[in-house]
Amino acid sequence: MRHDHLLSAHQLSRADVEEVLSRAAEVAADPAAFRDRHAGKLLALCFFEPSTRTKMSFDAAMKRLGGDTVDMGSVESSSVKKGESLADTVRVIEGYADGVVLRHPSEGAATMAAEFVDVPLVNAGDGAGQHPTQTLLDLYTIRETHGLDDLTIGVMGDLKYGRTVHSLSTVLTNFDARQHFISPESLRLPRGVRFDLHEAGAQVREHTDLDEVLPELDVLYVTRIQRERFPDENEYHTVAGQYRIDAETLEAAKDDLTVMHPLPRVDEIAPEVDDTDHARYFEQAHNGVPVRMALLDLLLEEGE
Amino acid sequence: MRHDHLLSAHQLSRADVEEVLSRAAEVAADPAAFRDRHAGKLLALCFFEPSTRTKMSFDAAMKRLGGDTVDMGSVESSSVKKGESLADTVRVIEGYADGVVLRHPSEGAATMAAEFVDVPLVNAGDGAGQHPTQTLLDLYTIRETHGLDDLTIGVMGDLKYGRTVHSLSTVLTNFDARQHFISPESLRLPRGVRFDLHEAGAQVREHTDLDEVLPELDVLYVTRIQRERFPDENEYHTVAGQYRIDAETLEAAKDDLTVMHPLPRVDEIAPEVDDTDHARYFEQAHNGVPVRMALLDLLLEEGE
Amino acid sequence: MRHDHLLSAHQLSRADVEEVLSRAAEVAADPAAFRDRHAGKLLALCFFEPSTRTKMSFDAAMKRLGGDTVDMGSVESSSVKKGESLADTVRVIEGYADGVVLRHPSEGAATMAAEFVDVPLVNAGDGAGQHPTQTLLDLYTIRETHGLDDLTIGVMGDLKYGRTVHSLSTVLTNFDARQHFISPESLRLPRGVRFDLHEAGAQVREHTDLDEVLPELDVLYVTRIQRERFPDENEYHTVAGQYRIDAETLEAAKDDLTVMHPLPRVDEIAPEVDDTDHARYFEQAHNGVPVRMALLDLLLEEGE
Repeated sequence: MRHDHLLSAHQLSRADVEEVLSRAAEVAADPAAFRDRHAGKLLALCFFEPSTRTKMSFDAAMKRLGGDTVDMGSVESSSVKKGESLADTVRVIEGYADGVVLRHPSEGAATMAAEFVDVPLVNAGDGAGQHPTQTLLDLYTIRETHGLDDLTIGVMGDLKYGRTVHSLSTVLTNFDARQHFISPESLRLPRGVRFDLHEAGAQVREHTDLDEVLPELDVLYVTRIQRERFPDENEYHTVAGQYRIDAETLEAAKDDLTVMHPLPRVDEIAPEVDDTDHARYFEQAHNGVPVRMALLDLLLEEGE
Repeated sequence: MRHDHLLSAHQLSRADVEEVLSRAAEVAADPAAFRDRHAGKLLALCFFEPSTRTKMSFDAAMKRLGGDTVDMGSVESSSVKKGESLADTVRVIEGYADGVVLRHPSEGAATMAAEFVDVPLVNAGDGAGQHPTQTLLDLYTIRETHGLDDLTIGVMGDLKYGRTVHSLSTVLTNFDARQHFISPESLRLPRGVRFDLHEAGAQVREHTDLDEVLPELDVLYVTRIQRERFPDENEYHTVAGQYRIDAETLEAAKDDLTVMHPLPRVDEIAPEVDDTDHARYFEQAHNGVPVRMALLDLLLEEGE
Repeated sequence: MRHDHLLSAHQLSRADVEEVLSRAAEVAADPAAFRDRHAGKLLALCFFEPSTRTKMSFDAAMKRLGGDTVDMGSVESSSVKKGESLADTVRVIEGYADGVVLRHPSEGAATMAAEFVDVPLVNAGDGAGQHPTQTLLDLYTIRETHGLDDLTIGVMGDLKYGRTVHSLSTVLTNFDARQHFISPESLRLPRGVRFDLHEAGAQVREHTDLDEVLPELDVLYVTRIQRERFPDENEYHTVAGQYRIDAETLEAAKDDLTVMHPLPRVDEIAPEVDDTDHARYFEQAHNGVPVRMALLDLLLEEGE
């Protein structure tokens, strides 16, 4: 890969994405071929915020490459409590490992930290900012189920706060994709994101009603509407109920519609959907392993 | 093993127990032979409740088999806090590993979770329910010190709440064992467990006084009497004092009596007992490694 | 090494120190030669107090030797909460591993624990007591930058509470070193430490002003002055400001002065110093890995 670090989905060109996804497909097809690929290498896991699936899948990915991880532990048990700067923390930790994965509550943290380290650094989420490996695994899932060309995708739910959605939409402008955004008025895509998509020449439409567009979709990407965004409990229930998917909803969809979700879900997708061929969200989560293996493989081999 | 998962000690036939214990004996005799047995495999550690010895010994067991582990971390740092169901959590995590070890505060959690996963799942304790690998290591310890035939065992302490004791007693009905239960009246074995033992044709007697039966015992299994069970502090001290073992107590025992304890102990076994040949509780804890290695070996090779 | 355990810097003779540091230099020169040195071995990490760099660097060190670690986790998630004694905890854990690293809040904990275990035990800090591997990596850093002979070292900051400083000073009495202690009157080296240094025939002088001695120094070891030591905020700022290093301060220093710090720092060394050749504190932290690899290598090979 052309990059020393992966800090933002925005840095990913179409060629970068294709390189990572192709490598991920090789990994998925023959994991044994990668089993000793990075034996003896260590990856530092620096999670300043809680995480289950991102952390576990990076951990699994590094170990599936034959390497191992060293974990910073929780912030409560770290030097950060003693007032150490992030720059100092990462400069110490880079001496313990061959690469660093960083999650931090502050937007821009990964970009700042990368200036201080010589080993590859991967942004695993920086507050309201970026979470580029989530975007890569989303793209990989789309590629495996429908392909990234001639794609009609609907993105539904909380489009205002969902960083996952913003990154995905931005990177999809590099592909031949029609993007439909379905949300209540109060949770529309932020003006800045809409502007960027417009600038990039994306084919974008917004809807408040899924019915308008569902029959056209190849992929429906559902996100959680968070209760805490609503001052009024009743209003939350009214809104959330309109953006909930069940078996009946999906009767109007194409037979080969792919339903995705970044997880965890609460009740925006009914459990009965899990057993349909539409449901790909668990597979999507599992794709975190080959995609992160591919990314680590590319970043670590660069350093050799 | 006939089983895909290990969910309950009750599912273990005599043949199952003997298969695991024989494999454990092979492991203990020649650990080097198992050193690369499951190289490249990952075991997910999902502990929704704190644990030291169970978690560390599963961790050590998987690593002694040449494999590695990925840890979900504490519930505080997991998606569970965002309202994710256990079914969703395990369905995601099974994609990161070749097996899952689950500890959960709710009785029946492991059995429910196993319905959702395709990889082997081991119950490492589900609330007041089951903890079958503890039973296996207890049985292994008895087998190594006295043997499982023609056994006279005393189980003493808190028999009402001790799930360890219930599982062990149930599985011992498959062997030629006379079981004596020694406890204060208020902490007797629950009616349901007594009924099950009776149904299974077990040779069972209950006592309030250890002296009545100590001289006959081959094994004395001591458990902790928990202070919080007693509304009155004085009553606790009176009761606990009667079910405490020291060097003097053991003068009436057979020379080759084996004293066991699931640990941690507080003061129900005096430290002076540690230096006697009777004390096998640390060895019992250490047996968690070969026994869990044997179990994982059997479950993982099944999946190959 | 002559020792089964590493409990205190005071047990380290000049020959011991040289053995560890020479081995560390071999490790640093050719890490690949040590990559499978302890394959199949497990090191238990028992941290009863939070730690980032010490824990991560032991973890990295063991993995760089081809071994692996099993982590006790935090005290909150351990049996300690159930009232288990430290002696019982370490006796159980030694059955899971080939060596134990222990950090504990109580002075003397490691020495006590070592009486109960047969595997090598390393003290990774016991309250106000000892932290001998920090001393070894400090000495290694000095050896690599200036050498341990004909050394003039200044130690500055909080000399009263800094266990790091006390251990280093004590071990330096075995070498040809002139030691200058620079601190406010209220944070002088404790009488007991001064007495020990005097007894050992050390060449020691105390100062309240860095200017008096800076031009002579080969090494300046800076420590943090903790705000909580001062009842008055203003007094803290006055004192801390006098023992703060920046580029201007260093103009009076030798060109090859080495500036060290055990980290984390707050603001006792200005960031502008990081870019000078004087700054060796990140390198010092990184040296934790080869030094701990060397130590573990020596202790574990002894047990074979």
